[in-house]
Amino acid sequence: MIRAETKIRVRYGETDQMGYAYYGIYAQYYEVGRVEAIRKLGFSYKEVEQRGIFLPVIDFSVNYRKPAYYDDELTIITSIKELPRGVRIPFEYECYNSANELLNTGKVTLASVDKNTGKLCQMPDWLVQAFTPFFSK
Amino acid sequence: MIRAETKIRVRYGETDQMGYAYYGIYAQYYEVGRVEAIRKLGFSYKEVEQRGIFLPVIDFSVNYRKPAYYDDELTIITSIKELPRGVRIPFEYECYNSANELLNTGKVTLASVDKNTGKLCQMPDWLVQAFTPFFSK
Amino acid sequence: MIRAETKIRVRYGETDQMGYAYYGIYAQYYEVGRVEAIRKLGFSYKEVEQRGIFLPVIDFSVNYRKPAYYDDELTIITSIKELPRGVRIPFEYECYNSANELLNTGKVTLASVDKNTGKLCQMPDWLVQAFTPFFSK
Amino acid sequence: MIRAETKIRVRYGETDQMGYAYYGIYAQYYEVGRVEAIRKLGFSYKEVEQRGIFLPVIDFSVNYRKPAYYDDELTIITSIKELPRGVRIPFEYECYNSANELLNTGKVTLASVDKNTGKLCQMPDWLVQAFTPFFSK
Repeated sequence: MIRAETKIRVRYGETDQMGYAYYGIYAQYYEVGRVEAIRKLGFSYKEVEQRGIFLPVIDFSVNYRKPAYYDDELTIITSIKELPRGVRIPFEYECYNSANELLNTGKVTLASVDKNTGKLCQMPDWLVQAFTPFFSK
Repeated sequence: MIRAETKIRVRYGETDQMGYAYYGIYAQYYEVGRVEAIRKLGFSYKEVEQRGIFLPVIDFSVNYRKPAYYDDELTIITSIKELPRGVRIPFEYECYNSANELLNTGKVTLASVDKNTGKLCQMPDWLVQAFTPFFSK
Repeated sequence: MIRAETKIRVRYGETDQMGYAYYGIYAQYYEVGRVEAIRKLGFSYKEVEQRGIFLPVIDFSVNYRKPAYYDDELTIITSIKELPRGVRIPFEYECYNSANELLNTGKVTLASVDKNTGKLCQMPDWLVQAFTPFFSK
Repeated sequence: MIRAETKIRVRYGETDQMGYAYYGIYAQYYEVGRVEAIRKLGFSYKEVEQRGIFLPVIDFSVNYRKPAYYDDELTIITSIKELPRGVRIPFEYECYNSANELLNTGKVTLASVDKNTGKLCQMPDWLVQAFTPFFSK
């Protein structure tokens, strides 16, 4: 299992007129969490792209329980619970505020795409091998 | 059933370095679609808030099939397929590009919240009654 | 002179907790106005990039007089008042609400950059020649 | 003088198809810098609003020299160089990348607005007095 914890503070421009962090902003917050989870593999998402692989999102869902507010410091917990295989990397999320209240949970699936052809492709060996040690008994 | 069609053109600032419309931007596109669907009731979402009801999102999901690109004109089809009751209003989405390719599908559920207390509340009668004619045989 | 008028409706996600359209969103609104101004040349900004020229912003300023609110329909008036020469294209903006109140004015300067080298370059002839008819007496 | 340094990492969703951090995102980055500068006064911007004062932006300008890229760690230096008086608080900005290259400079002026009336108002004494010690000889 891979697990990363990321702190994010809600910006003013991310609030809406309800005074909540806008529901769509979690796409960005989850992405920041993903970047931290991938760094645990020993390289950055930026390097993944430089090696010729894009990882666009193919599935995204959020279940909202409570809103976040301006200036709240949120903790995003990003997990990969099963060894990614084939073309898909599944992430799970929990988002807490500083009172440790669970604000939302979510899922994101990335797909492996060849940067040159723009088509889905099996994850390259170097990527699968980077994941493997986190999932062996 | 309520069904609204909305045209949205992808802005430059909505693209990312893959050259795709950023996956999180569909939260905004779907919201614009929702606003048009609600206008069919004879009032605007703005008026809903003025009458004391917030409708925050409690569930949001997108399934991405193909990316949209800068300057693409997208068609967002927003549907409410069942009469909303209780606290929830469920929306379904399809997003097409100008070649009529289905780019993504999604779901959003809104919840009825009392603006003064900030708590979930049954939808008021005027709101339920506005929906009803669209769902009678 | 080139002059384009663009209608933009303020999205919910573009408001902030003051209930205003967030001050930073005008970067996007002005960009949409720019795209319309450039279409008057007979090609799109997208085609400019396809022909090998990026036009990044090098100067941006806004003077805010009144806020815009959710669901307001804004009119963005984009003008190029002098024939662009060398590396720079200067745009001027006025933004009005539907009551015809002037909400803000602004300026943006684009610079011509070679897509391959990433360096500033003189505007190519085809671009200068497209501008010229709008500025002859 | 008040001076605050803030680190911000460029998010994927903040890039555009040129591969640059979108020019409009600096509105948010500068705002984050402002929040840190205000915290030096002994209270947060959130508390300023809770005490009945909004501080909307009335002037905003950026001069761009070099782009920032995805995953870059930026340093935003926010300064107030003169004692704010009357209704205006002027901020100056410098934004550097991790190679210490100056990417852009900017200015933002905030205006003091009464939260209840929505109108410009003199800054209250508690706010002026919080600034004063930073500007005495």
